[in-house]
Amino acid sequence: MSETDGIIKEYTHRYFLTAAPCNPQKELALPALVQQIIEVATEHADILGVGYTRLSKDHNLWVLSRIVIEMDHYPHMHEHYSLTTWIEGYNRHFSERNFEIRGEDDKVIGYARTIWVAINIDTRRPADLSGIASLAVTASDRPCPIDRIQKLRPVAEPQIVNEYVFRVCDIDFNRHVNSTRYIELIIDQLDLATLDSYFISRFEIIFQNEAHFNDHVTVQSAFGEEALASEIRLDDRTICLSRMFFTKRPDN
Amino acid sequence: MSETDGIIKEYTHRYFLTAAPCNPQKELALPALVQQIIEVATEHADILGVGYTRLSKDHNLWVLSRIVIEMDHYPHMHEHYSLTTWIEGYNRHFSERNFEIRGEDDKVIGYARTIWVAINIDTRRPADLSGIASLAVTASDRPCPIDRIQKLRPVAEPQIVNEYVFRVCDIDFNRHVNSTRYIELIIDQLDLATLDSYFISRFEIIFQNEAHFNDHVTVQSAFGEEALASEIRLDDRTICLSRMFFTKRPDN
Repeated sequence: MSETDGIIKEYTHRYFLTAAPCNPQKELALPALVQQIIEVATEHADILGVGYTRLSKDHNLWVLSRIVIEMDHYPHMHEHYSLTTWIEGYNRHFSERNFEIRGEDDKVIGYARTIWVAINIDTRRPADLSGIASLAVTASDRPCPIDRIQKLRPVAEPQIVNEYVFRVCDIDFNRHVNSTRYIELIIDQLDLATLDSYFISRFEIIFQNEAHFNDHVTVQSAFGEEALASEIRLDDRTICLSRMFFTKRPDN
Repeated sequence: MSETDGIIKEYTHRYFLTAAPCNPQKELALPALVQQIIEVATEHADILGVGYTRLSKDHNLWVLSRIVIEMDHYPHMHEHYSLTTWIEGYNRHFSERNFEIRGEDDKVIGYARTIWVAINIDTRRPADLSGIASLAVTASDRPCPIDRIQKLRPVAEPQIVNEYVFRVCDIDFNRHVNSTRYIELIIDQLDLATLDSYFISRFEIIFQNEAHFNDHVTVQSAFGEEALASEIRLDDRTICLSRMFFTKRPDN
């Protein structure tokens, strides 16, 4: 932990990669990494006194609005790794929180940028955070050398289309669909052979609307020049938009 | 950790329940509890020198064969809880590992029994563990006061039937379907209103055959006198059999 004026501006959580959160390529699965990013963000927000407990006093809640992850490679099974997080910026409505991912030997292997919006639990509208003065002194000037997400567009001419109905195990404490479940549905557009040959070197997602229990969605994807663009649609509404960039795995 | 003659016969892992692994009722989701049971089993086996690394030297692997969990209630969001594990018995082919789950104030809130079979990675047939002498001294005589699973039968006249095709995010490091994914599919036979009124007080599952990427399975369930029996079928093969017992939640 890095401390300035008594404020813990940077927070690190160390992990050991057991078999359970691994993908078929025996590395940390991307949805499991996102779940840990959410976990570490939650832990740091709690330490800073701007977590769930503080916000719920005002009937507010942090909601993950967008995330971009870039990885040189993923931690392998039975390796140690760590996530370090810090706040880059904030305003009345959202906070921009970054992550550095280090692998074995403490070498940097990736970064993530996340945007968190505070919403009112009752109205589901953006909340006003100006009452939480402590947010103003938590930002760190540590650099995060990956690009923010550019504007993402709906998928116009889908090449891969799948249907899905959300079930109870897809629903989180907030009664809407778990953020990591959307990410799984988007990765599930790919087949096993593709992911044996390529890994996801950059993953972008923007959450636009909430889906709920029993919602029937369409997951549609199209290959662009350098990325696979995906969209989860519920009738005429976009639930989320994503782009995945791939890198060929080294030959064994 | 409880130590006898230098052997760590009991191992405890403490957790704090953040929002991410919670179900819509704001308590530890059963599939997340199973994932932690697997995690804690793995950690203890590694400490005892009978984990993945040791078995893979002989081209063997631990596979979860059956699990039964009984809970008085589940840990609630933002509560502390712990899992303590110990080996009850073992023979040449399998090991019987139990768990005690404690909630806030260190009060016992549940137990689990698991059976782990060692299989050969190449032949997928049961392995012979008699070469691992250290297994012989690891058993603890701590009691586990819940019943073992009785024989489970295939579902003869299904009342709830759903289809599912396994995708990449359902596949684990071992290239077959993740154990917790089967459990999610079985719980997903229920709707949100049912789980708002009742919680799963006893969950039994026997894994009989492995399913793989792209396998198209049928999940079928029928209510018996006191439990919901479920089966996941792939053509004419049973993948797994399960029974769930429910308890009415206390009125708020």
